[in-house]
Amino acid sequence: MRISELSEQTAVPVATIKYYLREGVLQPGEARSVTKAEYGAAHVDRVRLIRAMVETAGLSIAAVRQVTTALDEPPGTRGELLGIAARALPTPHSGHPVSQTVRELVATLGWDVPAEHGALSSLSAAIEAARSAGVPFPLEMLLGYAGGALEVARLDVGAVRDVDPAEALRLVVTGTVLGEPVLAALRRIAQAHVARSLSVTGDPGRTGDAPRTG
Amino acid sequence: MRISELSEQTAVPVATIKYYLREGVLQPGEARSVTKAEYGAAHVDRVRLIRAMVETAGLSIAAVRQVTTALDEPPGTRGELLGIAARALPTPHSGHPVSQTVRELVATLGWDVPAEHGALSSLSAAIEAARSAGVPFPLEMLLGYAGGALEVARLDVGAVRDVDPAEALRLVVTGTVLGEPVLAALRRIAQAHVARSLSVTGDPGRTGDAPRTG
Repeated sequence: MRISELSEQTAVPVATIKYYLREGVLQPGEARSVTKAEYGAAHVDRVRLIRAMVETAGLSIAAVRQVTTALDEPPGTRGELLGIAARALPTPHSGHPVSQTVRELVATLGWDVPAEHGALSSLSAAIEAARSAGVPFPLEMLLGYAGGALEVARLDVGAVRDVDPAEALRLVVTGTVLGEPVLAALRRIAQAHVARSLSVTGDPGRTGDAPRTG
Repeated sequence: MRISELSEQTAVPVATIKYYLREGVLQPGEARSVTKAEYGAAHVDRVRLIRAMVETAGLSIAAVRQVTTALDEPPGTRGELLGIAARALPTPHSGHPVSQTVRELVATLGWDVPAEHGALSSLSAAIEAARSAGVPFPLEMLLGYAGGALEVARLDVGAVRDVDPAEALRLVVTGTVLGEPVLAALRRIAQAHVARSLSVTGDPGRTGDAPRTG
């Protein structure tokens, strides 16, 4: 197809597609003449992936390039691709120094995470902000939070195990960002449930495990 | 102490304290003359609670009043107070209709949550946004997310079980808001861990349970 058809199929303006080509995030079409190139289904998929990363997940074009470069290399393992996608995501407070608390937490958990992962900075900043507002977040509590986060992360990664690499990347990048408000809302609903069950039964730990019987 | 001292101790301007008095969220001082009143430690605590709710958690003055009114009533149960705090929090998309998916989810979980809880709307909106961006969030996955959220919510509520009601409210209101970026960052770190462990061992489900041995 021509670039105009690629534009129609993806609802992305031709000028934007040309920008993606210049930035090297969209692979060139097959040259038909000096001014014309032929595009195919792979281009449609790639444009959609780029849009999802830029529009939904807020990635910079440089971050998109990290992802697409990895995608264009000879197939590595799925895990590596996912790591690249995760690191490409915009990270709040990514320049914040990683705190002693966070290093200790990751060591205690035995998690295998690159020391330069931006989310370690985000976490350090978030804990520091909470502590200065008088919410202590002791290590014990952080370990519990990490348990909940791990449960969710296994689902996130599990959801992309059996899909092709490009689709997996799209799901990781968009799902990570769009899953945040889902998880935040579920936490608030769960708090309401636990608080109510506490006022009824005096035991916050058990009532969520099974439907109530009376 | 005089209102000027209350202002110094809390680092809140006198004009703002007078606004809190007019709005009925700060209890009046003990009248000493027509123009003077005496304030005590309870006023310092209350002003700090109001500040935490307004500044850190972004509550409107009407939402603060819901919390302080509950606090000034004869002691009910801790669970009720926490429910009031949770409902007073600003809720994204609180007017969004609660979706069938969310009703089904809560019913399947057997959670005891008021049908009008704003976070049910937030969750419906977040799932809808994800689905329109091509991230499906099937019920099965939402149930898993809910499991992680419940683990975190038990810690949230457990952390305030043995503290006095005013402090519990402050912690719930500020901790709910400030805990969101903590949980989001932990999820991303956990994703990186699971993705790496997947590329090493081929099994995303187990390596997080214990420190690695080799």
